[in-house]
Amino acid sequence: MAEPETFKIRRLEISDKRKGFIELLGQLTVAGSLTDEEFDGRFEEISSYGDDHVICVIEDEASGKIAATGSVMIEKKFVRSCGKVGHIEDVVVDSGFRGKQLGKTVVEFLMDHCKSMGCYKVILDCSVEKKSFYEKCGLTNKAIQMSKYFA
Amino acid sequence: MAEPETFKIRRLEISDKRKGFIELLGQLTVAGSLTDEEFDGRFEEISSYGDDHVICVIEDEASGKIAATGSVMIEKKFVRSCGKVGHIEDVVVDSGFRGKQLGKTVVEFLMDHCKSMGCYKVILDCSVEKKSFYEKCGLTNKAIQMSKYFA
Repeated sequence: MAEPETFKIRRLEISDKRKGFIELLGQLTVAGSLTDEEFDGRFEEISSYGDDHVICVIEDEASGKIAATGSVMIEKKFVRSCGKVGHIEDVVVDSGFRGKQLGKTVVEFLMDHCKSMGCYKVILDCSVEKKSFYEKCGLTNKAIQMSKYFA
Repeated sequence: MAEPETFKIRRLEISDKRKGFIELLGQLTVAGSLTDEEFDGRFEEISSYGDDHVICVIEDEASGKIAATGSVMIEKKFVRSCGKVGHIEDVVVDSGFRGKQLGKTVVEFLMDHCKSMGCYKVILDCSVEKKSFYEKCGLTNKAIQMSKYFA
């Protein structure tokens, strides 16, 4: 009989570098090389924003591997009577853990955080191929993304 | 003979509330009501991020009015070897000052800031109608925006 799967969702911890967090990001985009010092430094920088920049992970407790992640940054605006907007970024599920609703769980965790922080909306950018996934998460497409790469 | 127009681009100052800054944002979206205390508090919060959250304005020095504005928030990531991304938001030109390239000047100011901060890219979301304006600023459309309003 197979062991029951035990997934735990929580905020990123500094020890997650050894649990495949960076390798997982490499399934989304160019992760690049990173020394332990660089990882720790960036972890501290992001942590200094407290609830305004949250990275969540889902750990597969059986294997001790990070199975999914996503982040959200809270923007403080003047519009909407000093409203706040959540920007969701870098959502990815490990290819070995797909089909278990982990992506939806990550997005819902991040949206719940935005709601608890008093955001009036949450936004994210994605490829057209991901549109139906995010619609299942309750988001709708209203605008386009423009970008410019410097490097 | 008409006076020469004197536009000055700079970072938002706390005294800009009295120069029509909030009314200008009202031409972009719902600005909402804002007491002086709320404005000052949000100004201090954003200022505390230093170069990581910059709001720029163009002042028409002849009239002392804010003619255009835009903001950028720098996101610190783990991907791309701890790369940074600039998120441009809330770009608007006063209806009485359009056709003077002020929007392009704002976007270029914000992109220059991102470059000087070491960002590997800059992104923004806009309506399809604004696509050609941002293309003139050097950006291209590669993705879509998804959003969910809580309120």
